[in-house]
Amino acid sequence: MSFTFQIDRTAGSARAGVFLTPHGAVETPAFMPVGTLATVKALDPDDLVQMGASMILANAYHLHLRPGDDVVRELGGLHRFMRWERPILTDSGGFQVFSLAQLRTLNDDGVEFQSHIDGSRRFFTPEFVIQIERNLGADVIMQFDHVIPGQSDEASARDASERSIRWLARCLAELNRLESIQPLEGAPPMVTFSADDPGNRQALFPIVQGGIHASLRRDAAKKISEMHDWPGFGIGGLSVGEDKDAMYEMIEVVDEALPKAHPRYLMGVGFPEDLIESIRRGIDLFDCVAPTRMGRNGAVFTRDGRLNIKNTEFRTDPRPLDADCDCAACTRFSRAYIRHLFVSDEILGLRLLSLHNVHFLLSLTRQARQAIRSGNLEQWAREWLARYRATSAVAV
Amino acid sequence: MSFTFQIDRTAGSARAGVFLTPHGAVETPAFMPVGTLATVKALDPDDLVQMGASMILANAYHLHLRPGDDVVRELGGLHRFMRWERPILTDSGGFQVFSLAQLRTLNDDGVEFQSHIDGSRRFFTPEFVIQIERNLGADVIMQFDHVIPGQSDEASARDASERSIRWLARCLAELNRLESIQPLEGAPPMVTFSADDPGNRQALFPIVQGGIHASLRRDAAKKISEMHDWPGFGIGGLSVGEDKDAMYEMIEVVDEALPKAHPRYLMGVGFPEDLIESIRRGIDLFDCVAPTRMGRNGAVFTRDGRLNIKNTEFRTDPRPLDADCDCAACTRFSRAYIRHLFVSDEILGLRLLSLHNVHFLLSLTRQARQAIRSGNLEQWAREWLARYRATSAVAV
Repeated sequence: MSFTFQIDRTAGSARAGVFLTPHGAVETPAFMPVGTLATVKALDPDDLVQMGASMILANAYHLHLRPGDDVVRELGGLHRFMRWERPILTDSGGFQVFSLAQLRTLNDDGVEFQSHIDGSRRFFTPEFVIQIERNLGADVIMQFDHVIPGQSDEASARDASERSIRWLARCLAELNRLESIQPLEGAPPMVTFSADDPGNRQALFPIVQGGIHASLRRDAAKKISEMHDWPGFGIGGLSVGEDKDAMYEMIEVVDEALPKAHPRYLMGVGFPEDLIESIRRGIDLFDCVAPTRMGRNGAVFTRDGRLNIKNTEFRTDPRPLDADCDCAACTRFSRAYIRHLFVSDEILGLRLLSLHNVHFLLSLTRQARQAIRSGNLEQWAREWLARYRATSAVAV
Repeated sequence: MSFTFQIDRTAGSARAGVFLTPHGAVETPAFMPVGTLATVKALDPDDLVQMGASMILANAYHLHLRPGDDVVRELGGLHRFMRWERPILTDSGGFQVFSLAQLRTLNDDGVEFQSHIDGSRRFFTPEFVIQIERNLGADVIMQFDHVIPGQSDEASARDASERSIRWLARCLAELNRLESIQPLEGAPPMVTFSADDPGNRQALFPIVQGGIHASLRRDAAKKISEMHDWPGFGIGGLSVGEDKDAMYEMIEVVDEALPKAHPRYLMGVGFPEDLIESIRRGIDLFDCVAPTRMGRNGAVFTRDGRLNIKNTEFRTDPRPLDADCDCAACTRFSRAYIRHLFVSDEILGLRLLSLHNVHFLLSLTRQARQAIRSGNLEQWAREWLARYRATSAVAV
């Protein structure tokens, strides 16, 4: 079995583990940089290797539309296409279908919608999405789910959660079907998916939904866990507008309800403080576009809070973005230089801040892992958050 | 004397040499990537080191406006500001004042104009421009000159050329004055400019003007050469709309009229075929925005001519941009992937094509140097150009 999760040490609900995939190990807790369109925006794969990223994300919805999952398959799969030899996880596109796409028509079979690129009509079913994710060839693939707004009422949340669970069963059946058939000549492209080598299958993660309703979350976790021995679990529909306390409460509920033996991936989270609070509550994997998106807008994570590099106060500031950071931006360039790049619309500025912010979250999860292994997570978390929040740095 | 030029071997007018500066040696013929605003657009300094760039350009006009040459000086000069430890050349801004800026008023003292950024009124004199270039602290600084359109009549061209020569004398006097005074505490920033260390002065290059009028070019070269023992020579006002034959003829005229012992820098050129034809006519240094600007538009130099990566034919093309290229784009990524990045407006695409195109010209001048040293420049040039021009690649 290629997908194993070994927990080295715990601290309350928090865990320091190693998640093994066909493309290598992921030490957890881990932040996964987001490469929606098979590129982590503004960064080079070499940048990500240098900063110690292990698993990264890509998105089935986006890659189906551009360049097409058939094109990616023809070119040898996502790892080869984007030159990333480490693990990849693909999100199914549920979130995108229910947020980006236009004119949705939903029924139990699937969703008809219009592409946000060209308005063309598309129909996604759980089976079709698994076919896309198989063409892409990521190590971990997420189920197709029905995503609803963060503050939906209980009836809507129950409806979406139960539909997602029905779709999960169909995703699993489709993956089993695809894995059981001998691939056609040249497709799928990756030898690791041959039917002869069951150890190299893709890991399908279910997604626990249920909005901010504890009983729905508990129900979903229970039903999903009883359906199959999953290699890991996604937790979706959080950090989408609900308040922080509700999010933390839901994580606690799901932490209790899910089996402890597998990695838990909190989808779309997040910010430094969210990472720390969620690690304390038993989360192992994270992803979020914030570090790159904010970086392209000039926002910088530092140990002393956030700052915006475009502010005039940095015009002649010779200091690095963050004195405690050893990333390829901070070890070379001044705030003044990076501000100049932003003021002058120079592309290098976008890259340097994206690089710094992604490095910041990777480093943060590495520190959390170390704190769990050293048995001082609570003290480390308290001190880290106190310094981060006590900041006099300029709010963004 | 820090600035020496040693010619290892010649082939007709062509020379293979080494130009020594306070920040290291430049093996010639050499292409100098353009970092107008203290960054070679879309590239990291590490990219340039990896591809073997030696001297790069920056621009006094642009850096005076943003972030201000005073800011660059305060931060330790251009080398430290942009983290480039190898040689730098600054263009004076003559070309920008006469092309970008608005509402010019010219007299013999200097030029009044409006900034292209914010419309603020500015007055550039030869002395003021040398002060800017001293604050920036490049190894080689270009004189402030009067630049005119490529096909100007002889009277206008003579007027501008003679004014440029009068301004050159004032540039030299101002540089001597600045070098003779003990710098104030902290300014200029670079210890290499202390008055105690005459070996580390900045090298002022004159610019030979004269449009497409052979007699004016000859006159200018003669007067400039008689004025001073310059460490090198710029040749300006070419590749600005005149036809290729006129350009090559002017280069031949200037090659004959200038002393052979110093490097000649053909400003703003160019394209692969122009580099080869100009090297054959005695040029040692080149700069051009084409490789980065074209790269950002999807145009790619290859040994078999130019192509545009956005074309549909590359949608599933697994080949590198150029099979003979060992740059960091060609050794890793397919045309299909880079096309996908462009179609999806991903920043990595801009970086990869800029990187490839700059590498292409650096590699081309290295090959030319090797051909001169091996005594087979003419054969190499003929074969190179034949393959480049015989291409079936898609024209851009």
